[in-house]
Amino acid sequence: MEYRIEKDTLGEVKVPADVYWGAQTERSVENFKIARDTNKMPLEIIRAFAYLKKGAALTNMAAGVLPEEKANLIARVCDEILEGKLDDQFPLVVWQTGSGTQSNMNVNEVVAYRAHVLNGGKLSDKQKLLHPNDDVNKSQSSNDTFPTAMHIAAYKILVEVTLPGIKKLRDTLAEKSKAYMQVVKIGRTHFMDATPLTLGQEISGYVSQLDHGLKAIKHTLAHLSELALGGTAVGTGINTPPGYAAAVAARIAELTGLPFVTAENKFESLAAHDAIVESHGALKTVAVSLMKIANDIRMLSSGPRCGIGEIHIPDNEPGSSIMPGKVNPTQCEALTMVAAQVMGNDVAINIGGATGHFELNVFKPVMIYNFLHSARLIGEACVSFNDKCATGIEPIEANIRHNLNNSLMLVTALNTRIGYYKAAEIAQKAHKEGKTLKEMAVSLGYLTPEQFDEWVNPAEMVGHLNG
Amino acid sequence: MEYRIEKDTLGEVKVPADVYWGAQTERSVENFKIARDTNKMPLEIIRAFAYLKKGAALTNMAAGVLPEEKANLIARVCDEILEGKLDDQFPLVVWQTGSGTQSNMNVNEVVAYRAHVLNGGKLSDKQKLLHPNDDVNKSQSSNDTFPTAMHIAAYKILVEVTLPGIKKLRDTLAEKSKAYMQVVKIGRTHFMDATPLTLGQEISGYVSQLDHGLKAIKHTLAHLSELALGGTAVGTGINTPPGYAAAVAARIAELTGLPFVTAENKFESLAAHDAIVESHGALKTVAVSLMKIANDIRMLSSGPRCGIGEIHIPDNEPGSSIMPGKVNPTQCEALTMVAAQVMGNDVAINIGGATGHFELNVFKPVMIYNFLHSARLIGEACVSFNDKCATGIEPIEANIRHNLNNSLMLVTALNTRIGYYKAAEIAQKAHKEGKTLKEMAVSLGYLTPEQFDEWVNPAEMVGHLNG
Amino acid sequence: MEYRIEKDTLGEVKVPADVYWGAQTERSVENFKIARDTNKMPLEIIRAFAYLKKGAALTNMAAGVLPEEKANLIARVCDEILEGKLDDQFPLVVWQTGSGTQSNMNVNEVVAYRAHVLNGGKLSDKQKLLHPNDDVNKSQSSNDTFPTAMHIAAYKILVEVTLPGIKKLRDTLAEKSKAYMQVVKIGRTHFMDATPLTLGQEISGYVSQLDHGLKAIKHTLAHLSELALGGTAVGTGINTPPGYAAAVAARIAELTGLPFVTAENKFESLAAHDAIVESHGALKTVAVSLMKIANDIRMLSSGPRCGIGEIHIPDNEPGSSIMPGKVNPTQCEALTMVAAQVMGNDVAINIGGATGHFELNVFKPVMIYNFLHSARLIGEACVSFNDKCATGIEPIEANIRHNLNNSLMLVTALNTRIGYYKAAEIAQKAHKEGKTLKEMAVSLGYLTPEQFDEWVNPAEMVGHLNG
Amino acid sequence: MEYRIEKDTLGEVKVPADVYWGAQTERSVENFKIARDTNKMPLEIIRAFAYLKKGAALTNMAAGVLPEEKANLIARVCDEILEGKLDDQFPLVVWQTGSGTQSNMNVNEVVAYRAHVLNGGKLSDKQKLLHPNDDVNKSQSSNDTFPTAMHIAAYKILVEVTLPGIKKLRDTLAEKSKAYMQVVKIGRTHFMDATPLTLGQEISGYVSQLDHGLKAIKHTLAHLSELALGGTAVGTGINTPPGYAAAVAARIAELTGLPFVTAENKFESLAAHDAIVESHGALKTVAVSLMKIANDIRMLSSGPRCGIGEIHIPDNEPGSSIMPGKVNPTQCEALTMVAAQVMGNDVAINIGGATGHFELNVFKPVMIYNFLHSARLIGEACVSFNDKCATGIEPIEANIRHNLNNSLMLVTALNTRIGYYKAAEIAQKAHKEGKTLKEMAVSLGYLTPEQFDEWVNPAEMVGHLNG
Repeated sequence: MEYRIEKDTLGEVKVPADVYWGAQTERSVENFKIARDTNKMPLEIIRAFAYLKKGAALTNMAAGVLPEEKANLIARVCDEILEGKLDDQFPLVVWQTGSGTQSNMNVNEVVAYRAHVLNGGKLSDKQKLLHPNDDVNKSQSSNDTFPTAMHIAAYKILVEVTLPGIKKLRDTLAEKSKAYMQVVKIGRTHFMDATPLTLGQEISGYVSQLDHGLKAIKHTLAHLSELALGGTAVGTGINTPPGYAAAVAARIAELTGLPFVTAENKFESLAAHDAIVESHGALKTVAVSLMKIANDIRMLSSGPRCGIGEIHIPDNEPGSSIMPGKVNPTQCEALTMVAAQVMGNDVAINIGGATGHFELNVFKPVMIYNFLHSARLIGEACVSFNDKCATGIEPIEANIRHNLNNSLMLVTALNTRIGYYKAAEIAQKAHKEGKTLKEMAVSLGYLTPEQFDEWVNPAEMVGHLNG
Repeated sequence: MEYRIEKDTLGEVKVPADVYWGAQTERSVENFKIARDTNKMPLEIIRAFAYLKKGAALTNMAAGVLPEEKANLIARVCDEILEGKLDDQFPLVVWQTGSGTQSNMNVNEVVAYRAHVLNGGKLSDKQKLLHPNDDVNKSQSSNDTFPTAMHIAAYKILVEVTLPGIKKLRDTLAEKSKAYMQVVKIGRTHFMDATPLTLGQEISGYVSQLDHGLKAIKHTLAHLSELALGGTAVGTGINTPPGYAAAVAARIAELTGLPFVTAENKFESLAAHDAIVESHGALKTVAVSLMKIANDIRMLSSGPRCGIGEIHIPDNEPGSSIMPGKVNPTQCEALTMVAAQVMGNDVAINIGGATGHFELNVFKPVMIYNFLHSARLIGEACVSFNDKCATGIEPIEANIRHNLNNSLMLVTALNTRIGYYKAAEIAQKAHKEGKTLKEMAVSLGYLTPEQFDEWVNPAEMVGHLNG
Repeated sequence: MEYRIEKDTLGEVKVPADVYWGAQTERSVENFKIARDTNKMPLEIIRAFAYLKKGAALTNMAAGVLPEEKANLIARVCDEILEGKLDDQFPLVVWQTGSGTQSNMNVNEVVAYRAHVLNGGKLSDKQKLLHPNDDVNKSQSSNDTFPTAMHIAAYKILVEVTLPGIKKLRDTLAEKSKAYMQVVKIGRTHFMDATPLTLGQEISGYVSQLDHGLKAIKHTLAHLSELALGGTAVGTGINTPPGYAAAVAARIAELTGLPFVTAENKFESLAAHDAIVESHGALKTVAVSLMKIANDIRMLSSGPRCGIGEIHIPDNEPGSSIMPGKVNPTQCEALTMVAAQVMGNDVAINIGGATGHFELNVFKPVMIYNFLHSARLIGEACVSFNDKCATGIEPIEANIRHNLNNSLMLVTALNTRIGYYKAAEIAQKAHKEGKTLKEMAVSLGYLTPEQFDEWVNPAEMVGHLNG
Repeated sequence: MEYRIEKDTLGEVKVPADVYWGAQTERSVENFKIARDTNKMPLEIIRAFAYLKKGAALTNMAAGVLPEEKANLIARVCDEILEGKLDDQFPLVVWQTGSGTQSNMNVNEVVAYRAHVLNGGKLSDKQKLLHPNDDVNKSQSSNDTFPTAMHIAAYKILVEVTLPGIKKLRDTLAEKSKAYMQVVKIGRTHFMDATPLTLGQEISGYVSQLDHGLKAIKHTLAHLSELALGGTAVGTGINTPPGYAAAVAARIAELTGLPFVTAENKFESLAAHDAIVESHGALKTVAVSLMKIANDIRMLSSGPRCGIGEIHIPDNEPGSSIMPGKVNPTQCEALTMVAAQVMGNDVAINIGGATGHFELNVFKPVMIYNFLHSARLIGEACVSFNDKCATGIEPIEANIRHNLNNSLMLVTALNTRIGYYKAAEIAQKAHKEGKTLKEMAVSLGYLTPEQFDEWVNPAEMVGHLNG
């Protein structure tokens, strides 16, 4: 491979001749050979940096501390990054310095050197038009840029991937709930037969869970909308022009179309990432909901002959490499695996969030890596589950009816007529002797067949249907 | 011990003669001998049940399904429970049925039998005035009462213990922040010397963390304010009079003085406890904040001679059984241990929350046990930390000054004058040769002594002070 | 309340007149009002300290640094503690200093002052025969005693409660496995019908899990057997007589009957508690196993009419306060709640274990609190589950037979006869048309009825039975 | 793109014309669009499958159930997979069916179709020489192959990456411990000054932690060495020739050079993955150790002027984009982030492990994904930390000496001479009045200057040095 020589404050470094990055990026490539094939710094962070660097350049220009020519060049490269044209210029891994300094410098270097080339220069020029630190990083520090990029990336993925994905599934389930609101079926508590409800009611619980989950996530957006930028090295804003923090946040808000504001307290913004912890707490709440929903659906669809079998879900793949004709609830499985992952990611984020010291939290990359992982997993898994499973849920009415009529818990309707104890006696004896409730109720002399038929009516045991 | 005989639908049970509980409670005592010395069902849940049972009785009376005499007796016993007079009548442990059925029945039995005695009867009477199921539990199921008690207990402890505790600490820190807003000190990032800030600014970050934490917890109150009561067995509200759910929630709101409402969707309320998961997610966010704050304070106060030693915290106990004169940051240690516990409790709650099935989540006791544990720990640990540590924080000005003047990172102020690279050269050489920045800057010929004194002024490097 | 005055190096303290503890204990009572009703320092730790203090006194006596009279008095009080006579003398909570110093001092004070009384003195005497630090704590520091007490308590509870509890359940399941080794039933993978196995085989998987779990716990005993005692303040053994560390470990081994040895490296023993982390890792592995086993059992016993219903478990309590005659798998629920708790405790322990600094880990109390919690929960919950559930497991043969004969997955036996694709065709068509496999196989012309009966024999599909 | 038509039991599927995979793989590609850019099924699993498929083919051949020609072709393709020649033929993601069925089929299809091509056929041939199910998957099921691949991959990465990585770091630290065994320095407990020890002793604690960690991991290898293969669909071994299970395990042992054996109980092997849970429990124990060690090292090296500064670690990168000359402990940061990740992964694995049902655990992909992630992270991060940080640790003797001589805790040496209380008085007064211990001890009249010099000798306070 051919190389060129780049320099930073520690000295010279050999860099592959044709890459846009420079000395500091290359040092990090050499110094951190940890999970390089699978744990690159997420592209969402790189894109967020592009918004940030462009916003900063334009704000610096407006403040008169950066020449227009340089600012415009910076903006042009940032646009290229946002278009995905430079994806291969960001080789660093998550497992680097905990401040993400080298990823900030990676962006600074790529922007500076690519700008130099856009401006007609060559990568091999010793002197380049833009300086990674003095120009691209002007009025910035890794310590305020990286957390700013974290918030931009987190906010964007939530509104672009996670919330729409959950919403899509929620809407399908709401339709299913409405469609099957009259399908009376046996309820189950403790896995044991209970009083009836309708399939629509059952599904409405899932809808309510997701509605609350969407709200929970949205509650956390305000904290995420606060940007650290302008705090620079330790939160004091050293080396920034007056008014910079508010102006750059407004600029980023404009560029992204999202309601970002400057953080009221920059010391928090650098030293702690509670907004990430808080928001991921909402994500794991949704993961918990999804685990419940997916488990129910796979158990309700279990069988086809030796399970519960009250709903049918789409047959998507041959389910077994050995058992012919088997079909499995694979979307449920993917969704529950995602839920497990998100619950694990939550712990990694908590530990990272708790372990900041003094003016800087240095678990930034691991925190945002896990956050973005969870946010994408939930969003995309909800869509997958929606498209390939939820939309195809259908009741298997024969099984539903058979279970309903067979159940002993219809006896509950008699509590207010004959009291809990006598009702219990009916159910227990019917169970023991393999009889129906009606047979047993009548044979015990507690009511007439006519009374039974009047009082024990599953369709009236499901309450007022709000479908 | 003397016994009396009580009965439930499974048959007769010997119960200690003088206790108010009955057959079902006694069965659970016998069946669950797990951590009996330490893991009783929390009293907060018992008290919450007292509000609930009183509220239900009064609502049933108003609906005409319970005689006034019985309703009033029930209310009287509930008041006794709330006064703590019957604390020893609730012997069950957390590790029982996952619906908390026997704890509901424990309350039902104690209320019924104590009411009978209040009414002049004897515990040994075969026939008692009130029936645990048909009267005390009227219009209720364990499946809607236990989650209702969970929400009442959770909401109450948050507003009575957790939020005030955090707020108290937050206010003390805000005062300290203001008091020390002018105390310029060295900043530290990556544990390494960085540009200066003031002690007040540093502490303001903690205040901001707690402010956000308070908000995060408050965001979760709305979901907790939804009560399951009225859903009964599976959410359909079987065996409740018309209008019951809304009426009983209003009654409980009145009795507790808290803004409880009936849950819009009862199927969720029984089958999932996402409100608990979500709210505890906020608690663990605060735990994460507290870990950071307490760690900072113990490291800033480390020494007295071989540490950082920039603040002094109160000397509360002799710190060592072997090292004479040692004093330790014990409140920080208790607080960080609490934080670790809360982060662990979060996982137990997540797993419980994720593992509900069909119409009922049967991890209710473990979920609320952990929730109440965390809520109390955070509230009380914040008060302890506040009273015995935070109020006594004082800067050790000599050490602060010494570190500040000694630091190499003041060089950052020169970036905008001579560029990042030359500034780096000054700092690196000064470090290597053990010189001051000024000496080195001048000897390298980059600036005059006068320029150095003008440009490198720590007091001007801390930005605008909002103290 | 009446008080007496006690003194420590920070000055005088008012202590309740009739308690055996002294100034330092009282300071901690005042300084740490956190979860006082529920989170006392576990008695297991107090007892472990009794072994330790007795062992140290006898070793000091043998080394000639403690007079026989004092050593014997110390030993007498330790015996009283072990007999449970002084349980009310240990009022401190878990949430104190992270070194457990005040709990060590609590023991030192109680031993010293109770010894003084045993020797004929009065609690109100200014001068007492034994000094908490100079005599009872001789050759010790909190920093080596507390971790020693942790290992003693952890080892003891594992061998006395946890391992026997798991073993008991394992043995019952092994018996059940043997008893039902010939009961052929349908298998289920992905919750979907699969090829058959026997109930005994199914249960044998649980036995194997617990066998491996027992091994996993036992693998961790070696690390737990290492005692920190002799390391004193920072691991160097300052202020101990020659040969003390090995001698005191041998003495404690003798007193407890357990194979304790002195830790090879005392610096680790004070600064890290990886042995606790490692051992609890095994406990959570068992929790994971128990969750699986209990879930299976509750699902296999689900019904009675609308579930799987292939096994019956004991009816222990009326299962519902509203649904008459309902019985629930409550032991499964308690066990799975325990599993969730242990998985949460694991995280608290990890965080505590990871956050030690320099020569001391100061998360000792939270670590051992969670460890003992888990160890007791698993041990006692296994016994409860064993006695009240596992011993009563019985197959419901009618349901088992019905499911088996109904299943489509018996078709797998045809793979080696007619290939996977044709077999799949049979199963899929049979499912679609509601026919039996045999009907469909024959009607498709792939085999004769006689071939079907010969080749598709469930009893031959379960392999070699090792029952 | 051009396509060809492939078929499975659910019908025809369009597959890209030039890929080796077939219908089932393509279905999974379409059905699971979740984190496709970042969460491919790990290559370690694909390689493990190659060993397994080759082993199975050779065993089938030896058992006479697979023709030699087919077996040899299968073996050849497996060798190609092991050489990395077919890496791009495995497009599936982790978030698929929880049994990994489609990944098993992906391998089956690639092996079958590539073999067909190796044999001179074309991908577009309707009839191919080998059948993915009937030949490549012969005597196998996804249910036993995937867990077998999990164990092979887990065992291999532990012995090839994780254990050697930890060992390398352990050995460097052992050398450092020896090299600095005579460097007396102040100890720190609770972050506060304590009695002295040597730098070598301090580091020896880390070595001991890693020694125990290595042992802990090795203890789990036995369970991982058990292979599920031979259990097929539900553990009974249906459709396998006699002796197959033991023979195929022996074959895999031979091919991998690792001591694999057939699992004693196949029902456990399919339905639970406790071996993964148990082994990852050991990995997280090591993560806990590494967090402690890396934290110590970054704190000991903190400064350069306002921290503890007792050791120097290599300057690897410019540490700040804004603060010139700053260098940070970046390897410590990467290592602690890795530790946080592993602790999070542990929770995901626990949840997956706990949530298997009946005859199959369907969290296999998420479990092994997290396991391999952790195993690689620990191994590679240890090497990185070793090479770029640990090997360069050096004491900064001037700072060490200054702290040591300044410390008040040397007073501990006087306990056995003048008692704990008088020693405490000396230390407390010296601290208050800013004097040295010697000055204060003499001025209080407790000892002569000569006695002080004789009795308070740091070099004698560090015990016997085993360096």
